[in-house]
Amino acid sequence: MENSDIIYGKNSIIEALTSGSREINKILISRNIHTDGKINKIKELAQEKGIVFQFVAREKFQPYAELNHQGVIAQISPIKYMELEDFLETKNHTNSSLVILDGVEDSHNLGAIIRTCVCAGVDGIIIPSRRNVQVNATVEKISAGAINYIPIIKVNSLVNAVQKLKDSNWWIIATDASANDNYYDVKYNDMNFAIIMGAEHAGVSKSLLKISDYVVKIPMQNSFNSLNVSNALSAVIFETLRQKLMKDK
Amino acid sequence: MENSDIIYGKNSIIEALTSGSREINKILISRNIHTDGKINKIKELAQEKGIVFQFVAREKFQPYAELNHQGVIAQISPIKYMELEDFLETKNHTNSSLVILDGVEDSHNLGAIIRTCVCAGVDGIIIPSRRNVQVNATVEKISAGAINYIPIIKVNSLVNAVQKLKDSNWWIIATDASANDNYYDVKYNDMNFAIIMGAEHAGVSKSLLKISDYVVKIPMQNSFNSLNVSNALSAVIFETLRQKLMKDK
Repeated sequence: MENSDIIYGKNSIIEALTSGSREINKILISRNIHTDGKINKIKELAQEKGIVFQFVAREKFQPYAELNHQGVIAQISPIKYMELEDFLETKNHTNSSLVILDGVEDSHNLGAIIRTCVCAGVDGIIIPSRRNVQVNATVEKISAGAINYIPIIKVNSLVNAVQKLKDSNWWIIATDASANDNYYDVKYNDMNFAIIMGAEHAGVSKSLLKISDYVVKIPMQNSFNSLNVSNALSAVIFETLRQKLMKDK
Repeated sequence: MENSDIIYGKNSIIEALTSGSREINKILISRNIHTDGKINKIKELAQEKGIVFQFVAREKFQPYAELNHQGVIAQISPIKYMELEDFLETKNHTNSSLVILDGVEDSHNLGAIIRTCVCAGVDGIIIPSRRNVQVNATVEKISAGAINYIPIIKVNSLVNAVQKLKDSNWWIIATDASANDNYYDVKYNDMNFAIIMGAEHAGVSKSLLKISDYVVKIPMQNSFNSLNVSNALSAVIFETLRQKLMKDK
């Protein structure tokens, strides 16, 4: 059983039971944990949906000792990544938004980014199939179930994906510490746009910066200027939302 | 040796050596790790400052097995929290900002918040002495050294602290999911202000909401609406910075 085929933690499993599109095969609950409201909810939802749940000995959880599983694990069908072509064709996009991750390596960061994107109404997240963390059990846990609300699009080449987006009339905004413009100088309304966030140390690759329509920075106010990537994205993505909501008023 | 009296990880220790105001007693480096550029930098900085560093057997790190210490630990004087009175008197505050944390329990969140605050030029962070995570070794590690660039003010009562700020003519902005106004509706320029962020589940306490000048929300775009507290703060605090920088233009 691969890590990507389990999810763990009470909230993740409740979210997967209520909003997930993925098939849950079985839920394992440790006999040693205290049955609280959330465990009862998991049991109820599982019963409703005809999903097997088993109370098992503590030892069954030994392989997952390093995970903060709270005594409950679900075996689940692997996440279905979306194809970029399918994303572009699902609807007539206007004022849609995407986030493109170029080399984000930390599971906690990807989980937090997924959460932020869902809250801010982003329409999808593009990750490359290499040199980037994939959606694993930790990402799902940190996302607190948000993973069920947003398509994750996996591509072999970010450059090709960006080119395809440009061909479909999307605007590409890359973030880079040495940019001249600030992220809030761009007007995000009336267009489909994709924001590219880079690895925490290396930033966005040169090949992507070169084909982006805008390169923007977050203005730093201190000689200590190392902003966590999920917090950087939050600043940018909620600015795009602010502009949208201010305009709709 | 208490957890609060050590810091760990290469970057944290380099930051403490270069910018920290705290006394480093001794640096322990595991004999089993590969000596890279950062380890060499730690040795150089320690030599410059006359700080003892020792290469020790792997076993010495056993008590810290659960920490991601990268084979290097420093024994350090405990963090010096600032008194609110001292903060208020250090300078004639104009356009200053504070972040007040009401019940943030997770070390990763506090570390990320410290990082974001430093990058955005926030002048200080207030935490209560109870029911909130304190600055421990994990917080320092996650803050990536940012802890050395911002005063952390610890108070026994947040209500008293907020009252004192109001008496000193500061404006208080609390965040709450059920607020009517959005965070970007407030004009943050031309005033000293403090943003109150609540616990992830409980939110800001009623007693603090009642005495705040503004209560604002981050508009959520999805039925899944659980934004991580450090990402929520990032959205709000960079909006205050945007307003400031747009005005300065």
